[in-house]
Amino acid sequence: LSQCYDTVTIVGVGLLGGSIGLALRERKLSRRVLGIGRDRQHLQEALDRQIITQVADSLEESVGSSDLVIVCVPVGDIAGWVVRAAAVCPASCVITDVGSTKAHLVRQVDAQLPRISSFVGSHPIAGSHRQGCGAADARLFTGALTVLTPTQASTSESIEAIRDFWQSIGSHAVVMSPEQHDALVAFSSHIPHVVAAALAASTPPDALPLSGTGWRDTTRVASGSVGLWVDILRTNQGPVLQALSRFQEVLNQFQNALTTGDWNQVESLLLQGKELRDALGN
Amino acid sequence: LSQCYDTVTIVGVGLLGGSIGLALRERKLSRRVLGIGRDRQHLQEALDRQIITQVADSLEESVGSSDLVIVCVPVGDIAGWVVRAAAVCPASCVITDVGSTKAHLVRQVDAQLPRISSFVGSHPIAGSHRQGCGAADARLFTGALTVLTPTQASTSESIEAIRDFWQSIGSHAVVMSPEQHDALVAFSSHIPHVVAAALAASTPPDALPLSGTGWRDTTRVASGSVGLWVDILRTNQGPVLQALSRFQEVLNQFQNALTTGDWNQVESLLLQGKELRDALGN
Repeated sequence: LSQCYDTVTIVGVGLLGGSIGLALRERKLSRRVLGIGRDRQHLQEALDRQIITQVADSLEESVGSSDLVIVCVPVGDIAGWVVRAAAVCPASCVITDVGSTKAHLVRQVDAQLPRISSFVGSHPIAGSHRQGCGAADARLFTGALTVLTPTQASTSESIEAIRDFWQSIGSHAVVMSPEQHDALVAFSSHIPHVVAAALAASTPPDALPLSGTGWRDTTRVASGSVGLWVDILRTNQGPVLQALSRFQEVLNQFQNALTTGDWNQVESLLLQGKELRDALGN
Repeated sequence: LSQCYDTVTIVGVGLLGGSIGLALRERKLSRRVLGIGRDRQHLQEALDRQIITQVADSLEESVGSSDLVIVCVPVGDIAGWVVRAAAVCPASCVITDVGSTKAHLVRQVDAQLPRISSFVGSHPIAGSHRQGCGAADARLFTGALTVLTPTQASTSESIEAIRDFWQSIGSHAVVMSPEQHDALVAFSSHIPHVVAAALAASTPPDALPLSGTGWRDTTRVASGSVGLWVDILRTNQGPVLQALSRFQEVLNQFQNALTTGDWNQVESLLLQGKELRDALGN
């Protein structure tokens, strides 16, 4: 593959946007990679690191000459950028994002975009608790799964184009409804975050010197950006509460078994956890 | 340091016992490292890997010629081995263990040993979810903290000798009561394990393909040995239940804030978790 795109616009050049930029540049998939966002200093850093080839002066100008627009801002801000980009993008241009929740976004976008649209939501299952384009990694998406969540208006051509894009930077793509996506990531990502934060917050500071790799692994994601995570939980409130209830149910089973000294039941619960965990490997 | 011990006996040559053996051998701290345990095949493997210098024929013979005995079997089996070793060890020999819970063990040992004893409990805060002497690592204890929990009968000479031992293989040692140790590790190790297992067990299998590093980190310890962990939870029932209540309290605060859409409170809880987690580094 080479030179799939003449011009790509990345809105928000942080960890994910920066990693996309690096992947496009290293694989020589795009002649021009334009960066745009609120923070001029971040954009300059991305330029210095050769993640983008140019800082865009305006969204209108940049998107007007783009084949592909990828919106990589925090979840709560995505819809606004998508709608603005859709208003000025050429007919051949497709638009996607990298947000961690999808139904809330798609509802907002569907309400504001025309019936036929070149926007398709994306969520690459890749990331890090580190932030910023300084942590960007051209291989972040290699082998990772990206979930595509079309809106009601997304054309099948747009879906194929966005699928091709993710595959071109090493990811494999699956299509599902925004609602299905949100229900699954509530379990696979959002509840682990809430639980890790609750675990860290409930640890007395004098227990920290006695923490080993177990505590460190289990709580690691709690150091992620608070602002990003409020946004994620806010835009996935229903599924998160459902998944949390399910988690609390299992935890209560543990508590009951521990309280009554039912060690067979403790064993059985530990085994259920181990079997599911072992299914995934390290 | 060299040749601190003529003969050391390691009872149970798994991950921890094997790592102690390797550390003693690499640092040339002991002329002879004898291994003993239930499983002859494990001992042969340890011998093949040069973790021990010899498989002991009997505990009596081995301990009778040892300067140091380290019991590295599962928590529930430690007291029996310690009492047997104490009955045959020379006056100059000291005995310790590596068990993850201490008050239960110390109660058992105190009830069976004479008033003056050469046994001092140890818990090195080091480990892995991997098991067996194949995962042994001579540097496992380097820079790690080891908690020493003397019994009422431990002599101050024994405490100093066990402290010297851990320092000789790169660990630093602190002394605390078995009860204080158990209360702290309930938070720093046992609740993270229960939570990780509950998290894994409550994840629907169809959410697994959408799991990223967050889910993997948060649930990693759940793949640890179920048998070992039943033992740990069983021998630290009270402190574990107290720590679990504290965790559930914070989790309920999350649930309430999420339910009512109190995003300021969600933010404040995430921030508490992040601050505690960031205090520890990666």
